[in-house]
Amino acid sequence: MLKVGVILSGCGVFDGTEIHEAVAALIALDRKGAEIIYMAPNGPAMHVINHLSNETTGESRNILVESARIARGNIRDLAEVKAADIDALVIPGGFGAAKNLCNFAVKGADCVAHPQVARLIREVHRAGKPIGAMCIAPALVARVLGRDVAHLELTIGNDPGTAKALEAMGAYHINKSVKEVHVDVKNRVVTTPAYMLGSRVSEIAAGADKLVEELLRLVS
Amino acid sequence: MLKVGVILSGCGVFDGTEIHEAVAALIALDRKGAEIIYMAPNGPAMHVINHLSNETTGESRNILVESARIARGNIRDLAEVKAADIDALVIPGGFGAAKNLCNFAVKGADCVAHPQVARLIREVHRAGKPIGAMCIAPALVARVLGRDVAHLELTIGNDPGTAKALEAMGAYHINKSVKEVHVDVKNRVVTTPAYMLGSRVSEIAAGADKLVEELLRLVS
Repeated sequence: MLKVGVILSGCGVFDGTEIHEAVAALIALDRKGAEIIYMAPNGPAMHVINHLSNETTGESRNILVESARIARGNIRDLAEVKAADIDALVIPGGFGAAKNLCNFAVKGADCVAHPQVARLIREVHRAGKPIGAMCIAPALVARVLGRDVAHLELTIGNDPGTAKALEAMGAYHINKSVKEVHVDVKNRVVTTPAYMLGSRVSEIAAGADKLVEELLRLVS
Repeated sequence: MLKVGVILSGCGVFDGTEIHEAVAALIALDRKGAEIIYMAPNGPAMHVINHLSNETTGESRNILVESARIARGNIRDLAEVKAADIDALVIPGGFGAAKNLCNFAVKGADCVAHPQVARLIREVHRAGKPIGAMCIAPALVARVLGRDVAHLELTIGNDPGTAKALEAMGAYHINKSVKEVHVDVKNRVVTTPAYMLGSRVSEIAAGADKLVEELLRLVS
């Protein structure tokens, strides 16, 4: 049974993992018979957003603890996960990917990645295992791998500003629509725009299905 | 376009809505072209559970505000929703359904329902509009409608203790497996066991797909 790591970054689109994207990927992975290894960094989230008012609340919440809501409690501290533990990696989007896994939401192309997240992505990539990223999560992949690999191709949809930031981090951006994926076969990276472009959860599910299909095809 | 209300009860299986169940239902509804009207009670949750340690945290969180995480901010205070606003109703499970929508988790067959939730369920039922409930949420439906209708049939899977509690509230329990639904055609109530029985998210999605299909078939 293939083991696929899923990196969560909290629970909720504005300060954590985008919930629809995550669950759509989980359903697709489970339908393919993959065992899901949930993981998240153990530390405070950048901030907490009230998802009704869209204002920051001043609370402090832990990324791993909130991510455990999506994982139904069955989640590992990402710092303890090694590339050898998994056959592939999926990173759903949501602002958490750009606030807690790296700080792209604040710093754009000058962002830095969470050290343990960067370590795991690099280890997985070097082990020749495929990585799938949805929505804004390709920005994290660009930050970590963009300068390390010769020609990293990614999509975040078609937003020119975000695409430019990815290219400033060394990646090449390919425009795609919400139900499409881009497959960088050489680097074993699969990306899909998800809510960067979509407005309907069934579109997100269609993109997630394709992402998972292409990702598992790249497992050697 | 059919409008389907989805009652949320927080965000996370142990103190709110079960996230996988909710999103599986959302995907199924959106694939059928239904417009989703998210709603939740506006008030404090019974308690907050740390989903990593399974302990209560002592925090206070608002049901509507946390539910907004699943709804991506687009959610209404349930007290303002009328049966005329929707064509059907879906209630995903999770402990929130038995802690925040009613107190079945604490009181069992002696539970009381949240007054606004009870009002809306009664109004929807009297208007001849169908209601779908997943996992433990049928306990809420039993509490609200069990004494009002002649022969209300529900399933929560096959747990004898829970089934007995539903019957003590006036409902009739039918054993079902995780990928099945029970359709009470006369009362227009569709139920599926979801995580009361399932262990895999793809099973939950299969049950949600069937629930939504049967639910929309009952819209007159």
